[in-house]
Amino acid sequence: MRTGIATVCLSGTLKEKMQACAIAGFDGIEIFEQDLVTSPLSPGDVRSMAADLGLGLDLYQPFRDFDGVAPDLLKANLRRAEAKFNLMSRLGMDTILVCSNVATATIDDDAVRAEQLAQLAGLAGDHGIKVAYEALAWGKHVNDYEHAYRLVEMVDHPNLGTCLDSFHILSRDWDTAPIEKLDPEKIFFVQVADAPKLTMDVLSWSRHYRVFPGEGQFELAKFMGHVVRAGYSGPVSLEVFNDVFRQSDVDRTAVDAMRSLIWLEEQSAKWLAGSAEAAEGGSAASRRRYPMELATLPKVSEPAGFNFAEVKADDTARLEKLLGQLGFGFEGRHRTKDVQLWTMGQARVIINEQAASHAEPSIAALGFDVDSPVIASARAQQLKAPVVARKVQADEEVFQGISAPDSTEIFLCQGSPDGTAAWTREFGEGLEHRTPSGGPGAAAVIDHVNLAQPWQHFDEAVLFYTSALALEPQPFAEVPSPSGLVRSQVMTTSDAAVRLVLNLAPVQQARSEVRKTYQEHIAFAVKDLVATARAARDRGLEFLQIPANYYEDLDARFDLDPGFLATLQELNLLYDRDADGEFLHFYTATVGSVFFEMVERRGGYDGYGAPNAPVRHAVQYDSLHRT
Amino acid sequence: MRTGIATVCLSGTLKEKMQACAIAGFDGIEIFEQDLVTSPLSPGDVRSMAADLGLGLDLYQPFRDFDGVAPDLLKANLRRAEAKFNLMSRLGMDTILVCSNVATATIDDDAVRAEQLAQLAGLAGDHGIKVAYEALAWGKHVNDYEHAYRLVEMVDHPNLGTCLDSFHILSRDWDTAPIEKLDPEKIFFVQVADAPKLTMDVLSWSRHYRVFPGEGQFELAKFMGHVVRAGYSGPVSLEVFNDVFRQSDVDRTAVDAMRSLIWLEEQSAKWLAGSAEAAEGGSAASRRRYPMELATLPKVSEPAGFNFAEVKADDTARLEKLLGQLGFGFEGRHRTKDVQLWTMGQARVIINEQAASHAEPSIAALGFDVDSPVIASARAQQLKAPVVARKVQADEEVFQGISAPDSTEIFLCQGSPDGTAAWTREFGEGLEHRTPSGGPGAAAVIDHVNLAQPWQHFDEAVLFYTSALALEPQPFAEVPSPSGLVRSQVMTTSDAAVRLVLNLAPVQQARSEVRKTYQEHIAFAVKDLVATARAARDRGLEFLQIPANYYEDLDARFDLDPGFLATLQELNLLYDRDADGEFLHFYTATVGSVFFEMVERRGGYDGYGAPNAPVRHAVQYDSLHRT
Repeated sequence: MRTGIATVCLSGTLKEKMQACAIAGFDGIEIFEQDLVTSPLSPGDVRSMAADLGLGLDLYQPFRDFDGVAPDLLKANLRRAEAKFNLMSRLGMDTILVCSNVATATIDDDAVRAEQLAQLAGLAGDHGIKVAYEALAWGKHVNDYEHAYRLVEMVDHPNLGTCLDSFHILSRDWDTAPIEKLDPEKIFFVQVADAPKLTMDVLSWSRHYRVFPGEGQFELAKFMGHVVRAGYSGPVSLEVFNDVFRQSDVDRTAVDAMRSLIWLEEQSAKWLAGSAEAAEGGSAASRRRYPMELATLPKVSEPAGFNFAEVKADDTARLEKLLGQLGFGFEGRHRTKDVQLWTMGQARVIINEQAASHAEPSIAALGFDVDSPVIASARAQQLKAPVVARKVQADEEVFQGISAPDSTEIFLCQGSPDGTAAWTREFGEGLEHRTPSGGPGAAAVIDHVNLAQPWQHFDEAVLFYTSALALEPQPFAEVPSPSGLVRSQVMTTSDAAVRLVLNLAPVQQARSEVRKTYQEHIAFAVKDLVATARAARDRGLEFLQIPANYYEDLDARFDLDPGFLATLQELNLLYDRDADGEFLHFYTATVGSVFFEMVERRGGYDGYGAPNAPVRHAVQYDSLHRT
Repeated sequence: MRTGIATVCLSGTLKEKMQACAIAGFDGIEIFEQDLVTSPLSPGDVRSMAADLGLGLDLYQPFRDFDGVAPDLLKANLRRAEAKFNLMSRLGMDTILVCSNVATATIDDDAVRAEQLAQLAGLAGDHGIKVAYEALAWGKHVNDYEHAYRLVEMVDHPNLGTCLDSFHILSRDWDTAPIEKLDPEKIFFVQVADAPKLTMDVLSWSRHYRVFPGEGQFELAKFMGHVVRAGYSGPVSLEVFNDVFRQSDVDRTAVDAMRSLIWLEEQSAKWLAGSAEAAEGGSAASRRRYPMELATLPKVSEPAGFNFAEVKADDTARLEKLLGQLGFGFEGRHRTKDVQLWTMGQARVIINEQAASHAEPSIAALGFDVDSPVIASARAQQLKAPVVARKVQADEEVFQGISAPDSTEIFLCQGSPDGTAAWTREFGEGLEHRTPSGGPGAAAVIDHVNLAQPWQHFDEAVLFYTSALALEPQPFAEVPSPSGLVRSQVMTTSDAAVRLVLNLAPVQQARSEVRKTYQEHIAFAVKDLVATARAARDRGLEFLQIPANYYEDLDARFDLDPGFLATLQELNLLYDRDADGEFLHFYTATVGSVFFEMVERRGGYDGYGAPNAPVRHAVQYDSLHRT
């Protein structure tokens, strides 16, 4: 698949954009006209810079409001087009995007449109230019890709074809199956964009909220599958108008963009194989060849669970105290590194003392159990995840590490059927293992981890965990806090053995450094939360103090048994209930930017106590501002 | 008018919110349930704190999903309501908001709803509580205020009334005139919110985009006029869910909120007077008394023009050089202050050398010609604008100054019929006035001023200039820049003698200090821009360098005379044309955060060269990142 991206997706100058696209590994780019018009680079400069960077200049765009106009305007439009064709020849470009008219069309007649497009195609032919005509979702008269294609067929000129843009097609819910019947010779270009499903006018949706494939909710693999089956083999190019991407670091956004296409390529191949198999049976179908070759990635399967979580700090005393009070046992120090292992049942927490001085405690790394760390790491690296180097001595387990968009280190670990981890033998040689062998924590596991995300990298994080770790984004929630709404995006495996919560903090907090002002946590699940809480209280744990008003409201909502309600209040436990089950949980005080949560899931409860999140935020805010 | 605000409008804890509301001068507040539930304050604490602060606790809200439910759920709902009634008695509150059911209603039958509401009203009566039933715009079965009112009438119980919320009514385009026919005894509460007109699902619109009155596009004065005519005299209370306000400084947002109600009160009185006069003729109608008394403000009329603009810096040499090169004449120093006056025609620029050391040049103040500075200042102060103190000596003109939301100082000056300013005599005694008496700048005026706005205070700024200076917001534009989209809000007088452009910079830039990274400018209009530019070039002015690609595109778009095009390019002039006329302009290089623009308007051109703004942003970005 030939990969491309429109310069309008990115921040910066044309030069910065082109360099970022080359570094990210794109085959070609679309030149967004305004980027050229505002650039000090001459067309010749752009041409030679693209050649030096190994970037194809695949599409000049957009040319607007051409068709269905009165004769005077047609003349001016043809003049305007010729000026652009001349410019394109200096750029060494051969394809221009012409959008269906949204503003100046006064004649709604296919014959007139076809006749005018024929004139344009003729002129383009004289200049060796190909015109890709596209139906905008909000086109005044032409807003359906099949309509645009019919016009292309009516004109039947070698220099006129169509451009298919997933946003314009999927935002209008047009059926994508008929794409397969289009003549591939007449599909001059394919643009892809994803988007969250929003109920708003399609122009605003398009101009502000598009995201890269895998970051939204469109069925892009299916769209691409139909495109491939049509026989198209040209560029597949991102055109994503997004308010945040336009403000973010250009190099980083370009990599995020490239990742989305690599992932889409794999998903499209999968859709094709699955769909062929369903239709024709057997594996022969999946070996069918199409003009567009779709590269594959190292396979991924969902992680089986969390292997460990790592917290770092220069002063680890408060962390050690908290974990001890929660019921974790100290398993010893690593034989060569300044790290400690603490465990409770199958929940393993590493305390990393190697942090720079004056570093407040924060979540540094997560380990996931995967089938094959090497294959998973190879996949992540092909998806452009930065590799994390970790020093190892001979005889120590080598961790495959990659860096997530928020800089959390993700380690891909060899899972074991019994939930143990071989690397733990590197800890605490000769030390007495103090893990309580029974007690309420015996069956503890990491239930979920909640990571604060910088506002610029939220969509990137969703795609990262989707593509590299096969986690599935769940519908997001918005939680009120005293500092604003917190957007909370849960990513899980299908069996919910791994639950990761990405929290997008309000911008006010993100203005300084997210990690400092916004708190993250690790939650552990136990079988008996009340017993765990009592034991922790007896060990002197500092619980997050839940206001009395909360319990009064809880009782109004749930009509709880008075004894049970008293127990909840006595132990600062929070409670939620839905049709599937019940949820009990409590939070510790915060050290640095980290706190811990203990949870008990009863029945089929699958949530996170979302109705209680505002209470947590308010109490944390209050203690932060009191101190 | 009794003023109120729901705590959900503001950031912070319940305590912080209550304090901010008291300082801003609200009569009462609505307690948003979640703010109480998450608070460590007991109901008794809240009650006594409110009493100490002089704040009424006017409404407890919201109580959700009561009506149209199955019998089991009704029982639970009544139990839940009774718990809240008991809570309210401890809070000393007597009115609760009950919203029409959006989730759990299974029976769509007015008789059933009325019967259930009657049970609720009976229970409320036992506790001395009044229930204000409100139709939510997205209510499952009840989403129209007249429907909610019919149910109230059907029940006909002294403890059941309705709540009118401008958002729920105006977002659905319900006719507001029938409000006048409602029995005022049955209107228990009125909530007001404004909103920009957006095409999106009403729930998202409501939860994220509401703004304070005067900051959106709803006809609130008319809504309020009908409410007043109905005979209602209870609280008029803001309920504004806004993502930005929830993140901003609580004290400041509370003042912004209060300003919006003061302004709405005046606008409502005006609407009533105007509407009565139209209907009945004469002034008797406008003297009609209603139970709700509407306070008036000192009158305002539009400013007649800019009196001056002031730029400050510790090192003013570069500013002096730029102004001199543009054709401004140095009129001398102030006789007692470290400020200089420069003029070109009627355009006056003050260079303030009193700035703190290491202060980069920035726009510090704007003077506006008004009919009466004292009345205008009194008005602004009643609208809670902070007063700016400026030292004056005997015999000097006293400026009435207020501080705008972005900290620009706004001075209200005595206009004169000939456009001169009396205070200029305080400058340059004995100095030779070097203003060129003829030449292209003879008729120069300040055309517009462009101020960068911090993202948290954009809506506040719109209301400030609307209410204090009678400027009218025009439809806003979004301009692409290499750092993201810039939202540009033009505010003008009806004759366009004053044009103020508020630019909301992308958040990336706002993260450090807006003024440092984002540029502002003062634009001067002349009769002959080409001559002005030539003269400036001859004096060595550093123009903002416009890329050659721009002129090629300009020619493609406008088919310009080759000689004219060459002149534009030679002088780095930008050009725009629309149906009304033409616009020529150029920009200077930037010093500190300030640059200047010279413009020529031909014919009836009323814009600002918006199509050229991306070029300016790109070139400025490029020079900022090159240096």
